[in-house]
Amino acid sequence: MKIIRGAEFTEELLRRNDSNQTDLEFDRNVLSIIDQVRSEGDQAVLNFTERFDGVKLDNLIVTEEEINEAEQAVTDDFYRALRSAKERITTYHEAQKEQSWFLNPNEGIMLGQKVTPIDSVGLYVPGGKAAYPSTVLMNALPAKIAGVGRISMVTPPQRDGKINPYVLVAAKEAGVDRIYKVGGAQAIAALAYGTETIEKVVKITGPGNAYVARAKKWVFGDVAIDMIAGPSEICVVADAHTNPIYAAADLLSQAEHDERAAAVCITTSEAFAAELSKEVERQLAELDRKEIATQSIEQFGRIIIVDSLEEAFDIVNRLAPEHLELMIDQPMEHLAAIRNAGAIFLGQHSPEALGDYMAGPNHTLPTSGTAAFSSPLGVYDFMKKSSIIYYSENALAEVADDVITLADAEQLTGHANSIKVRKAGY
Amino acid sequence: MKIIRGAEFTEELLRRNDSNQTDLEFDRNVLSIIDQVRSEGDQAVLNFTERFDGVKLDNLIVTEEEINEAEQAVTDDFYRALRSAKERITTYHEAQKEQSWFLNPNEGIMLGQKVTPIDSVGLYVPGGKAAYPSTVLMNALPAKIAGVGRISMVTPPQRDGKINPYVLVAAKEAGVDRIYKVGGAQAIAALAYGTETIEKVVKITGPGNAYVARAKKWVFGDVAIDMIAGPSEICVVADAHTNPIYAAADLLSQAEHDERAAAVCITTSEAFAAELSKEVERQLAELDRKEIATQSIEQFGRIIIVDSLEEAFDIVNRLAPEHLELMIDQPMEHLAAIRNAGAIFLGQHSPEALGDYMAGPNHTLPTSGTAAFSSPLGVYDFMKKSSIIYYSENALAEVADDVITLADAEQLTGHANSIKVRKAGY
Repeated sequence: MKIIRGAEFTEELLRRNDSNQTDLEFDRNVLSIIDQVRSEGDQAVLNFTERFDGVKLDNLIVTEEEINEAEQAVTDDFYRALRSAKERITTYHEAQKEQSWFLNPNEGIMLGQKVTPIDSVGLYVPGGKAAYPSTVLMNALPAKIAGVGRISMVTPPQRDGKINPYVLVAAKEAGVDRIYKVGGAQAIAALAYGTETIEKVVKITGPGNAYVARAKKWVFGDVAIDMIAGPSEICVVADAHTNPIYAAADLLSQAEHDERAAAVCITTSEAFAAELSKEVERQLAELDRKEIATQSIEQFGRIIIVDSLEEAFDIVNRLAPEHLELMIDQPMEHLAAIRNAGAIFLGQHSPEALGDYMAGPNHTLPTSGTAAFSSPLGVYDFMKKSSIIYYSENALAEVADDVITLADAEQLTGHANSIKVRKAGY
Repeated sequence: MKIIRGAEFTEELLRRNDSNQTDLEFDRNVLSIIDQVRSEGDQAVLNFTERFDGVKLDNLIVTEEEINEAEQAVTDDFYRALRSAKERITTYHEAQKEQSWFLNPNEGIMLGQKVTPIDSVGLYVPGGKAAYPSTVLMNALPAKIAGVGRISMVTPPQRDGKINPYVLVAAKEAGVDRIYKVGGAQAIAALAYGTETIEKVVKITGPGNAYVARAKKWVFGDVAIDMIAGPSEICVVADAHTNPIYAAADLLSQAEHDERAAAVCITTSEAFAAELSKEVERQLAELDRKEIATQSIEQFGRIIIVDSLEEAFDIVNRLAPEHLELMIDQPMEHLAAIRNAGAIFLGQHSPEALGDYMAGPNHTLPTSGTAAFSSPLGVYDFMKKSSIIYYSENALAEVADDVITLADAEQLTGHANSIKVRKAGY
């Protein structure tokens, strides 16, 4: 793993995800899928599923029997682990739930903020060779805790028309109401606009491939979406006391995700840097997903030597990493210096993988520098707010002239008039 | 104003804003502006400003002198009204500010949510004949209260190269740090990617025309945006006791905004409906913006008669109106029935215009049905969250096997390995 100095690499990393690529041909394809699903409904969904997933389906809905079958297929160990994760994720997310509030700033005035769950949500779960039951929990549980009335899930079928049993079991445990066998842009279009079988939702969350991401960008506005995830990253801040074996394993746990994933360590110790570099090479050789991890480490993996922790935190804040591990001495004392990060892992025994599955906070985090302006997925993503305004006759009378002045300055005399007609009666 | 029965009109209203229009030619124009600003910076911005705003500028930045000049140009009444609005908006939004929190669910575990302001924001303020100082307050004050480090504002120059004095004075009062004379898609591109003069920001908020809205959609992902506003609406729920003069004035205050604005009254009283219809026609004739309001009322203005308040609230929840006025008896008692609305105004003396300028809550509200999944602009839009995860050695040891089980189920053995290397030492 390459050892470098200075912050220049940060900019290179941030540029690796330029979402604003103007590939209008690709957009034309995505839009054509969306339009066909809107106009032809189920039939279009079934046709695209045959074309892209290689399977001719009779029924888009996963049946009770299929779920029962999946329950038989998974091990007791998996069940125990899944339930433990569910419990811990639930505890954390319940603490996130916001309450409605009001205040009475003056006599005769009540102002408030009413918090309400959204009516329905559609959760996208990727298919392919690997299955992601953790993604199901991390998306469905916050929605459940928020009080969303209807939670739908879409996931592309395998070539045999089935869905991975881990995913089905996780969906049942998390309280998903209905599961549809559909993936890609056609799934996003079906959730956004509805078909005969697939009920429309008001928000779509969950990760997906390039088609899914682009379709989400296009339906955004007609429905809400969570975020458009780019390649992900881990940043480990280390000093002379950091365990290089742990740090190497954590960097590689990110690198194995994707060739474009980034694993960066920033350290004040040259000796540590040298040890870490060797340890990464050693562990890399033993990984199942060696090819992917090697490409990631070569392209976007770096050990950056800095003179001070202040310099390290400056780089962290520019990078706004999805995962930040503070593997330094007394990490809690340095939290104030961190402005931009998706999740912050403290100490030697809080690896990213713990957060991916079990710790409690959500693993859906802002990637590729978007932690500078976005938050982890949370209960707040499944609720929305309404303002409450009550003024008594007297309270309105007190501000009437000021409102009229401001409305007149904006040449909106109809606005002014709605105050004047009341003032006439006072 | 037309009187109808039943809920069918709701669907028609919701369809009036189909944001997913696939006009790729328009996108090509918007993208070409964005690309030119990215590659040529200030020069492109100046060229587009000459072309679209008809003015050749030497300097994109509003100077101290120009602000001083503006301060001389506005009246004392305006100042007093502006400061009163600022105070009330500040009081409400300070109550919105979220705090960081943590919890200790088990021995050796600390989990938390750290809330941090975003570093910078760009506020778009429309130009044209009318000026909107209230928009400046409603966008800049929440950002200020959140603690955003740098607040930039962009607004298109008039043909004489100047900016409306009301807007400049509001920007100074609200604590905007820098004001640029630029509008349209070129302003959005400059804020998203930066030029020699215009510093890049991480989030863009504020309303704009079709070019602005589309440019925001395209830069979304590279920066955050607030929302893409569609045509707006008011929904008044009325009974036999509602004052038809007030209700008519409120409906028209919305209708005067835009030909595509919608003003709907839902009432249980046929007698009230008849009175209201006449009163709207009477007041309409006297409005300055009569042409706009007439078109809005004809196309999208309706009085809907229902049998019960339950039926009324059902329509409200389907419509998810931007502004909802409950002008019925005991409105507070019916709040529980309202799930979807941007702002809810209670009683006879809380007109929409009060909320637009003075009441305290934000006037930037989800339009065109998006209140089903979006919230008013708030302090929370200018802050983001980071998860905090700390597990002690013992706490990790307790869950180690479960994490490994889940990682293996997802075939992410590098993830499992990051736990195993630690477990080896326990």
